[in-house]
Amino acid sequence: MYKVDLNSDIGESFGNYSLGMDEEVMKFITSANIACGWHAGDAMVMDKTVAMAKKLNIAIGAHPGFPDLMGFGRREMKVSYEEAKNYIKYQIGALCAFSKSHGVELQHVKVHGAFYNMAAKDSNMARAIAEAVYEADKELILVGLAKSEMIKMGRDVGLKVANEVFADRAYNPDGTLVSRNIKGAVIHDKDEAIKRVIRMVMSGKVTAATGEDIDIEADTICVHGDNPSAVSFVQEIRKALEEENIIVAPIGSFIR
Amino acid sequence: MYKVDLNSDIGESFGNYSLGMDEEVMKFITSANIACGWHAGDAMVMDKTVAMAKKLNIAIGAHPGFPDLMGFGRREMKVSYEEAKNYIKYQIGALCAFSKSHGVELQHVKVHGAFYNMAAKDSNMARAIAEAVYEADKELILVGLAKSEMIKMGRDVGLKVANEVFADRAYNPDGTLVSRNIKGAVIHDKDEAIKRVIRMVMSGKVTAATGEDIDIEADTICVHGDNPSAVSFVQEIRKALEEENIIVAPIGSFIR
Amino acid sequence: MYKVDLNSDIGESFGNYSLGMDEEVMKFITSANIACGWHAGDAMVMDKTVAMAKKLNIAIGAHPGFPDLMGFGRREMKVSYEEAKNYIKYQIGALCAFSKSHGVELQHVKVHGAFYNMAAKDSNMARAIAEAVYEADKELILVGLAKSEMIKMGRDVGLKVANEVFADRAYNPDGTLVSRNIKGAVIHDKDEAIKRVIRMVMSGKVTAATGEDIDIEADTICVHGDNPSAVSFVQEIRKALEEENIIVAPIGSFIR
Amino acid sequence: MYKVDLNSDIGESFGNYSLGMDEEVMKFITSANIACGWHAGDAMVMDKTVAMAKKLNIAIGAHPGFPDLMGFGRREMKVSYEEAKNYIKYQIGALCAFSKSHGVELQHVKVHGAFYNMAAKDSNMARAIAEAVYEADKELILVGLAKSEMIKMGRDVGLKVANEVFADRAYNPDGTLVSRNIKGAVIHDKDEAIKRVIRMVMSGKVTAATGEDIDIEADTICVHGDNPSAVSFVQEIRKALEEENIIVAPIGSFIR
Repeated sequence: MYKVDLNSDIGESFGNYSLGMDEEVMKFITSANIACGWHAGDAMVMDKTVAMAKKLNIAIGAHPGFPDLMGFGRREMKVSYEEAKNYIKYQIGALCAFSKSHGVELQHVKVHGAFYNMAAKDSNMARAIAEAVYEADKELILVGLAKSEMIKMGRDVGLKVANEVFADRAYNPDGTLVSRNIKGAVIHDKDEAIKRVIRMVMSGKVTAATGEDIDIEADTICVHGDNPSAVSFVQEIRKALEEENIIVAPIGSFIR
Repeated sequence: MYKVDLNSDIGESFGNYSLGMDEEVMKFITSANIACGWHAGDAMVMDKTVAMAKKLNIAIGAHPGFPDLMGFGRREMKVSYEEAKNYIKYQIGALCAFSKSHGVELQHVKVHGAFYNMAAKDSNMARAIAEAVYEADKELILVGLAKSEMIKMGRDVGLKVANEVFADRAYNPDGTLVSRNIKGAVIHDKDEAIKRVIRMVMSGKVTAATGEDIDIEADTICVHGDNPSAVSFVQEIRKALEEENIIVAPIGSFIR
Repeated sequence: MYKVDLNSDIGESFGNYSLGMDEEVMKFITSANIACGWHAGDAMVMDKTVAMAKKLNIAIGAHPGFPDLMGFGRREMKVSYEEAKNYIKYQIGALCAFSKSHGVELQHVKVHGAFYNMAAKDSNMARAIAEAVYEADKELILVGLAKSEMIKMGRDVGLKVANEVFADRAYNPDGTLVSRNIKGAVIHDKDEAIKRVIRMVMSGKVTAATGEDIDIEADTICVHGDNPSAVSFVQEIRKALEEENIIVAPIGSFIR
Repeated sequence: MYKVDLNSDIGESFGNYSLGMDEEVMKFITSANIACGWHAGDAMVMDKTVAMAKKLNIAIGAHPGFPDLMGFGRREMKVSYEEAKNYIKYQIGALCAFSKSHGVELQHVKVHGAFYNMAAKDSNMARAIAEAVYEADKELILVGLAKSEMIKMGRDVGLKVANEVFADRAYNPDGTLVSRNIKGAVIHDKDEAIKRVIRMVMSGKVTAATGEDIDIEADTICVHGDNPSAVSFVQEIRKALEEENIIVAPIGSFIR
């Protein structure tokens, strides 16, 4: 029986600013990555988002980012090993207060934006993050780009890990994502994207931008809730997965 | 046997900025109130401070403040009930990640600056804080100004509470502190201050600025580590208390 | 010939967060109050907003607020006289860099949110703001609630002032706005609101919530661009004013 | 007649946090680089610092940095061309409000920390900064590392530029500074440092770490006021320069 998780970044509103169709996309995903107040989100939004996830029976995880609200955590910052480690811990802890209040448990940690991308390639940063998660709570699942340094380091420190794949992104032969600056980086054909995802889940293969097939593990699929068309695409992906008898469920229910 | 705790605000450095003689004052206190990154402190400082407290075998607590680094949390902000509640939770949670990492437990919560002062008088704000602490972890002790709304609301929601007294501050007949704008608000005579503290601990009485004696419970005494003379005053207070056979110990060891 | 200005808060987006239908509402207003990066706005948004105002030939002013992005500057903060003064100067200066770059001049300053409301009543805070504006550039027009301390203090320090009125808000007999917590504070009937505005402009009178007529000067009308219906209301107000042969023009063209 | 300027970073305190012996070091320098509230400094500190510089008759300049108070602007951030440009403008403008209030003019702009170091090598970032300065006020002098991209781009956009040299740092043959991670990067021998500085000013030469002499222009020397020994070193440098009949004066008095 094939199993896969659908995850999305949630709770990225801040103060007077609203972002994302959280309530809509949460109907179709199985795991929510909740922003922790550094690159996005705030204490009010976190409380509300955890409550909403609980109500919809969705698993939750921390989505820590760089201390860069102005750049939405999307800009590389050269933080030290210790800074990376403590920044991750701080944000996991902050979210824990809300999950504990609502009587739910954190399932996972998925790092945000530039922090995620840097850690996919930089083994030092990846190790700092993995250690932070382990020391904060060694039962947490670390979500990282499939085949990346993050996955390697998560395993290395003794964490359960979840390989994340992208439905709409082209892959390099080494499993990294084709940079958004390069033509063809984003797969706009929805049917094509869905086919790729199903293949990743069922046969562990994806065709790289260079044309060759590469091995890839797909534990969780990253989806978006930015706008109505993104949300309906999530619904389609889910439907397509279920039509193939793939069980769509939170990573916590099948990762070990 | 009389028992009392000595608490001080610790970990108020931020980034490149150093504040307070933390290492020195921590030798003489029994409970450290650790800033949580909003009015002061940051993830690096929190990690280091928890490690230091553990090494010195001092009890630790969260010291959450307003989101006002520029004003050091000393300026009144009109936050809503829900905001107060979520701001407190967020900061307790953040500190928890570090206490958990270091294998120590949080003992208490003491709110900072203007947040503390507003909550001493405003029962709504006090209740929001008390509920936040209870929902984050109902074993935490809530430290508040002796006789204040904070103490009342802490008891009301079912928390253990610790009455805080000030060695060097004059009291009004209702137990509130004489405003710093009024002459005589601060007691500069050290011997006088020490005598007052010992009396508060042993007989539960203090002479108000108006001359009359009032009842006051003294579970924990607020002391400071801003400069060498403040630190040596803490040492003197501790010595004086011990000479009276008062046991100086963390509130967690005797509050119930 | 009657003249009046239509002003709106503009440039309140921040980083990845969008707010307000700036481009649409700017077609109908004559003065834009541009957020300066403290309660809202950032350097990128300020640059873009000044460029847009220039293109649409709209007068611009600084819209400084409290250092409270999380609360959108809507929460009272007890800042000192010197703090108020320097906070206003800093934000005016920051905006000036962009107006200078684009070859346009700042016309006015209108303080935001809680800062505006506090200064309407608190003569100390009003004076601090007025002095800041005067010292930053004594040619700037200070916009304040009609009849308020802000207007009084602006005149007192030697600034040109503009009395601001609200189309959709009920007034107390002393010219202050009826608090939003009280029923009837907001006038939902658009025709009624437009009639009130025209009367304020043409006869300097408005009927207070208590039923009596009060004197009020109307130099500039505060309008909003939050959503499509708000924008179309601005268009209607403008049309109604022009049908009465009231000239709708920037305050800088007629205030002296 | 040889002329040189002594510049130091000033006004880096923030809120309740004090940093640097500003008052002491300002007695010996000729140009103060004033932090603008992003990596350090705040509106209160800026006002006070400008007043102090005016009183001591020292030239002032803006010292803009990355939006990273937590990292004191010392961490690389990948900002875009437009972000770099607008971030610089915003901060120059903010400081202008205070210089204008005190009736003094800004003389120069020197970018801070990681922003400075990145712009020394990255011609794109250097150009963005140079354009920002030019558009904010084309009379401002742009201070940059001698021989760097910053100097090149400053000249290119039409600004007056000032080559900055370091007394206590080793140079690579291309004029870049030897990285602090490499042994010998900092010259600890004060006499040696002073001799090097005098040679740079008088003969435009310095011996690189590799042993060869390189050409270097020295318009302004970077000095520090972090602690008493740093301050007394500044005093010594100044004395030594004057003993060689080198005129120590603000760059604005001799750069063209």
